[in-house]
Order: sequence, then C-alpha cells, then structure tokens
Amino acid sequence: MSDSAGYSGEALRFLKKANAKVGDLLEVSTGWGSVTGTVVPHYAHGDQDKIVLKLHSGYNIGLSVSGLGGAVVREAGRSPAFNPPPIPKSGKGLPRVLLLGTGGTIASRVDYRTGAVRPAVSSRDLHALVPELSEVASVESQIVLNILSENITPAHWTKLANIVAVAARRGLDGVVITHGTDTLGYTAAALSFALMGVPIPVVLVGAQRSSDRPSSDATLNLIAAVSVAARSSFSGVYVAMHLNENDDKIAFHRGTRVRKNHTSRRDAFVSVGVPLAAIWGREGLEQVDQGLPPRGGEGPFRPRTRFDGRTAFLKFYPSMPGRLVESAVRGAKALVLEGTGLGHVNAECVLAVRKFIRRGGLAAITSQCINGRVNLNVYETGRDLIEAGVIPLEDTLAETALVKTMWALGNHRKMSLVKEAMTKNLVGEMTPRAFPE
Amino acid sequence: MSDSAGYSGEALRFLKKANAKVGDLLEVSTGWGSVTGTVVPHYAHGDQDKIVLKLHSGYNIGLSVSGLGGAVVREAGRSPAFNPPPIPKSGKGLPRVLLLGTGGTIASRVDYRTGAVRPAVSSRDLHALVPELSEVASVESQIVLNILSENITPAHWTKLANIVAVAARRGLDGVVITHGTDTLGYTAAALSFALMGVPIPVVLVGAQRSSDRPSSDATLNLIAAVSVAARSSFSGVYVAMHLNENDDKIAFHRGTRVRKNHTSRRDAFVSVGVPLAAIWGREGLEQVDQGLPPRGGEGPFRPRTRFDGRTAFLKFYPSMPGRLVESAVRGAKALVLEGTGLGHVNAECVLAVRKFIRRGGLAAITSQCINGRVNLNVYETGRDLIEAGVIPLEDTLAETALVKTMWALGNHRKMSLVKEAMTKNLVGEMTPRAFPE
Repeated sequence: MSDSAGYSGEALRFLKKANAKVGDLLEVSTGWGSVTGTVVPHYAHGDQDKIVLKLHSGYNIGLSVSGLGGAVVREAGRSPAFNPPPIPKSGKGLPRVLLLGTGGTIASRVDYRTGAVRPAVSSRDLHALVPELSEVASVESQIVLNILSENITPAHWTKLANIVAVAARRGLDGVVITHGTDTLGYTAAALSFALMGVPIPVVLVGAQRSSDRPSSDATLNLIAAVSVAARSSFSGVYVAMHLNENDDKIAFHRGTRVRKNHTSRRDAFVSVGVPLAAIWGREGLEQVDQGLPPRGGEGPFRPRTRFDGRTAFLKFYPSMPGRLVESAVRGAKALVLEGTGLGHVNAECVLAVRKFIRRGGLAAITSQCINGRVNLNVYETGRDLIEAGVIPLEDTLAETALVKTMWALGNHRKMSLVKEAMTKNLVGEMTPRAFPE
Repeated sequence: MSDSAGYSGEALRFLKKANAKVGDLLEVSTGWGSVTGTVVPHYAHGDQDKIVLKLHSGYNIGLSVSGLGGAVVREAGRSPAFNPPPIPKSGKGLPRVLLLGTGGTIASRVDYRTGAVRPAVSSRDLHALVPELSEVASVESQIVLNILSENITPAHWTKLANIVAVAARRGLDGVVITHGTDTLGYTAAALSFALMGVPIPVVLVGAQRSSDRPSSDATLNLIAAVSVAARSSFSGVYVAMHLNENDDKIAFHRGTRVRKNHTSRRDAFVSVGVPLAAIWGREGLEQVDQGLPPRGGEGPFRPRTRFDGRTAFLKFYPSMPGRLVESAVRGAKALVLEGTGLGHVNAECVLAVRKFIRRGGLAAITSQCINGRVNLNVYETGRDLIEAGVIPLEDTLAETALVKTMWALGNHRKMSLVKEAMTKNLVGEMTPRAFPE
C-alpha cells in the first residue's frame, strides 16, 4: 500500500502478503469460518496486529491477524478521495458566511465502497462537502481543528470563540461551525457564554450518520446551518440538527439548552426546558421562540473568551464516597454536582462539599433528572446544601452548568463575581424563579 | 413547645419567647419587611439560629433569628398527627400483600396547615397512609428503613431483597415497597438483579408531591401498586408512578429500564428503550409488554442479594483529567463510565482506564445520551476502548449498569464470571445486539 492508512506491524505485513490495500474486498479465514469485508483505514494506537474490515452490513469488525489463516482479495477497491470542485467565486450580493471545520463525522467524506472516513483537511475539502452551498452564501472556509470531539478542551473553545469574534467584527453575516456530535452541546454552551451579545448567528452543526449511508443527515444539516447563518433575522449561538427522522426539517436549538439525548438517531438533539429556537425547511424558516435576540444583537458585544478548566464535575450515585468528592476537587477551584431529584447528594458528600467550600471552593448543583429545576428548599438535604453554601442552578442543564462555571472562573478574578454570575441567567441557560414562588 | 421538632439553640429560644410552636401561623419582622408563615419542623444540622416558615405559596423560607425583630403568633396551629384507623382484619379470600416502608415523601403524612412532613414510623402508620387498601388486599406492613433515599446504600438493597425473598417463600401474593423518588430507579434495578426469577410481583412506588398539595400522587400510586402486587398475572420487579399529569393512570416500568427524568412532575419516571410494562387504571390493568414473566416465575428463583459497593462511577465531560479516573478507581474493583455519544472518553482517560484494567480492574461503558446504544466499533476512540478491554454495555442505562456491576461483583468471586455477567442480558436491562448487525 502506498498509504499504510494507519496499519503497521503484523497487520501491515499480513495485508502486504495478501497484496491487499485499503478499499479492497478481502476474504479471510478465521477459526470460526471465513469473513469477507472491505479493508478500512485504521488509526487506532497500539493494536498493530489487527485489521479492520467493513462488513456488508456497514459495521466494522477488528480481527487479530495472529488468529487468521489465509486472505484473498476478492475485488480491488478505489481509494477514497475528495475530488473537490473548484471553490466558486463569491457570488455578488450573496451574504458572507464563515465555515469553520473542527472534525467530526460531518466534516468528512466517505468512500462509498470502503466506508472509510476521510476528514476534510483543507479549507478546499471543507467547502467541497456541499458544493450547493455556493448558491446560498458566499462561503469562506477554514479548518480550525481536526480532532475527535471527545478530545475538545476549554482551550479549543477559546480558539473558536476568538475566530468567531473577529469574523463578527469583520462584518461577516454569519458563522457555521462543523463539529462532532459527542460534545457539540458543550461547545455550543461555551460559545454562548464567550460570545454573549454576538450580533450575528453562530450555528454549530454535526451529523449523526456518515455520508456512506443513505440516511445521512450531513448535507441537509449543513445547508440549513449556512442558510440560517446567512439570512436569519436573529443572532446568537445555536445548534442545527434534524428535527425528526425525516430528511426535511432542521431544528435550531439555543446553545445553552441543547442536549444529545440519543446515541445514534438523526434527531438525537433536543431543547431542554425551552421551546426550539426555530425550524428550517426547504420552504423557509419558522422562528418558534419569539424571544431570540435580533440580528445586530442586543446591547454591546464584548466577547469574553477565556475558560478556566479547574472545575470538577461529578454525577452523584448511591453510596458515592465523600472521598471521591475530595479527590475530584484537589487542585480545582469549583465543583459542579449532578445530584438526584431536586438536587441531592448523600450525607458524606454533603460534608465533603462543605469542607471544599470552607477552603474557598465554589460548589453548584444541578439534577441528573435533566428536566425540571433543582429546589433545595424542600428537603433536609437541600437545606444542608444551601447552608454549606452550594449554589442551586435552577433549571440549568448539568453540561451547560459545567461550561458556565469554567467560563465564569476564566473571566472573573474575584470569587464573589464568579458566584454572582452563577446565580444569574446570562444567555438563556436558566429560567429565573420568582422567590418565593 | 413540648416537641422541639428539630429546633435548638437561638432558634428555639426565639420561638419560646414568642410562645410559638410548630403549626402556628407566625408573623416576624425582618430587615426587609414582615413575613407571615407557618412554623415548620426543622431537622437540619448545624443551623441552630434559623427558623423555617412555610409561606402561603407552599414554599419554605429559612430565616436567621439574629436578623429578626419581633414575632407574633397570628393563629395557633394543630400539631400534625397520623390518627391511624385501626388496622383492619385480613379480609377473607383477599390476596396477601407485604407493604414495606423505607422513607420518602410517599410514606409520610402531612399536616394540612403546616405542610410539615411526619414520616410513617410504625407499621400502623404505614398502613394508615391509604386505609382503602384494605379493600384491595390483606396488607401486612413493615418499616424497613426510614431514610432519605439519597442515603440508600447497597447494604440497604441487600436488606430489602432478603425481606422480599422471604416473603415470596412464605407465599405472599406480592410486595410493595414505598421509596423516595430520588434513587427509586437505582433500588428498582438492584432488586431486579438480586431477585431474578422472583415468582411474585414486587412493586416500588414513590410520590413526587406530598399529600398537603391538591396535586399529590401518593394515594393513587399506592393503590395501583398494591392492586397490581395483589392480582397481576405477571411477576418481576417494577416501578409504579403516574403515567401523565392526570390523576387516573399509573405506569408500571421494568425495574432495570426506568429513569427519573424530571425533578418534580408526577409523571417524572419513564421507561427507556423498552415499552411500558403495564398501565393501571380504575377500570383495570393493561399489560403493554407481552414479554413479562408470568406469576409463578420462569425458571428457578435463586435470590442473590449481595452487592459489592467497590465500584466507581464517572460521567465523562470535556477535559476530564485522567487523574480523576485514577483517584476514582483507587480501592475499587470496577469502574462504570458514562461516555459521550456511542461511548467515548478523551485520550487521557482512555489511558487511565487501560492502566486500571491492566491492574485487574473491570471497566464498562454506557452513554450519557440515555437513549440508544453504545457502539465501540465506529470510531477510533471506541476501538481504543475495546482494545483496552472496556466492556460496552449496549443499551443498558448508566444507573442500571452501575447497580449491575455492584451486584455482579457481590455474587461472583471469579472476575471472569463477573465479566460474563456484564456482557449478557440478565433481567431485561440490555437488548442484545445480533453481531454483526
């Protein structure tokens, strides 16, 4: 193989011996029968004796070559390629949209035979994902990151936010960010806080199915994202994903209220505790939430793009030891808890949290119920937590609460200001409760 | 006050000076105006200078007496009391149901004036919760625990399971367990594993609203639970809670598939990934899932009621440090991860997990998406996790996965048997996937 596609060691030798390359249909004999599948690139670490075959079903199987008998190439494959069309000239009069690539299923093209994902590694590749975007907007594209979204960190959020801030100042009409779906909600929340008051729409978009499957959602999600970024009458940070399993409507969720609630469905993302922001269809855009900030923004745009990652996050469970809290907060400035019900943890965790707060730490609580709001006034444990100084985050999503804490710590030096930020609704993440209700 | 109802120190002195007792309507003057509310019992620790008033709105407010001016009793209150009716004689021919109390909102009676919760502390109190149960079944009641459900531990699960096992052997027709809703789902999963093959229905039941509110769900939930425990044609462990916000239908969820998905709604509990087991209404019981085991059980009933709590549980989040994994697994035999998407964590956590497994630990992964199944075959990170030896738990709920791990560790000495148990569907917690699909 000219490109070893991640293979090395035993596995590479096995493929070379069979004269097989990525994309070839290979039949191998195993201890339990013969298996036929297409050789797929393999970038995993440390498993140099495995080959990965894509079966006819679309699923991949990893086989240790030490357990394999012979191998025969049944059909030679093509190598995956982007074959990008030329980048179209900026259409005159079209809105200008910046398209940012960060990795993930959406920013990749898949060889129809192998199913091997080839990430967009140049801005030309990125633009080539959906050539018809050129009819919707004059698209500038840029690769910012190319990582699996589970490896995103607060430093990446800062980088993205800074690029968007510059684009907004340069007068672009909107920004679209392609992103892996795993942590799309977290990044959307991060940009919501970092870019408060942003005068243009900033749309994060992903795909749940790669484009080798007839059910891929990548194209429509991206067209909707670019269309809305180009022309919506509202500004702010949103996530654009399929509204349902049909391939015709795209839901726009507020960046602080969106959650991935299914591992694989195209409509995995939902708005929690608030209505959808908007619904896009081929025939136009329906703004569902009339409270969205208008294009141009409300108030000043003062991006605050720093995050302080020294925030621990724990989901409570029965018999969670207090010492887990203690080790999690070692070196941390803040702790976000995902409690049970109205916002509870067991007695020994209450003690550990109290100790952390007494040492100057900040602790806040949300609920693992996802829906509804925490209320520390109803039961003894809640009152103990209030007395310890734990901040109840009302109906803020746990994931958004974590991001908000990192943001508040990153942009305020005084702990009192951090606390104040945590108790307030800043960008739609919390529905304030009248007290007493 | 004859009963200090949790008050001591400054707060008790303040109340005594005003000649006020629990249940009285008290007006106090504060720095920001006067507040009128009913004095409520107060069992919190360490805040001896606070009084708690229940406002007209139904919400409680805690006031530090050091900041208060005078106080005047506006209306004398009654003390809360159970006034239980005599326990009825066993109705001849009625099915026999064992009613177990563990604490929680449901197993309490609330004084209509104060809203103060008085827990059922004797079996007589427990029975008196819903006197009309006597028409449905011959009910024996027993207080097993009286704790807030966030303080439930694996040792409590064992205790409950043993009592149910004895009841099943004694020939009772069903068991109902009243339980706080916070960890109701965890306990339901625990009993499902511990009591596999139980020949009678075991119904866990809670309430989201205490009975001082017109919207209380306690009574109907309990009637449904006892009715089904007494007469259902199926066996197994279930959770009974409101189907919707109407007060007429009660949903029965499989014990391994149920999740509290709202902090306060009466229909907070949902079945995840499977249909409801059954729906109860005044007119009868509709069995939705035709795959439930019949009354009498399928196969042998061999309760295995031990749990080994040495299992760590972590929900992954962006930038989660590998050292959090390391400290969580210190002294643990197993780790359950709630990954993103199809079951992912970042690269440094993959390394930490690999280290733990190499030292002999067991690690398994679920998804924080709640719905859908993990699949480690699609992306690099998943393949890294498989290679590290992480067990993908398919569509098992994260909470159920934690409980299952503790149960498997508690009942198998050989790690190979623990692993085998984790990869199999035992009691409806996992829908096996044909491989390759």
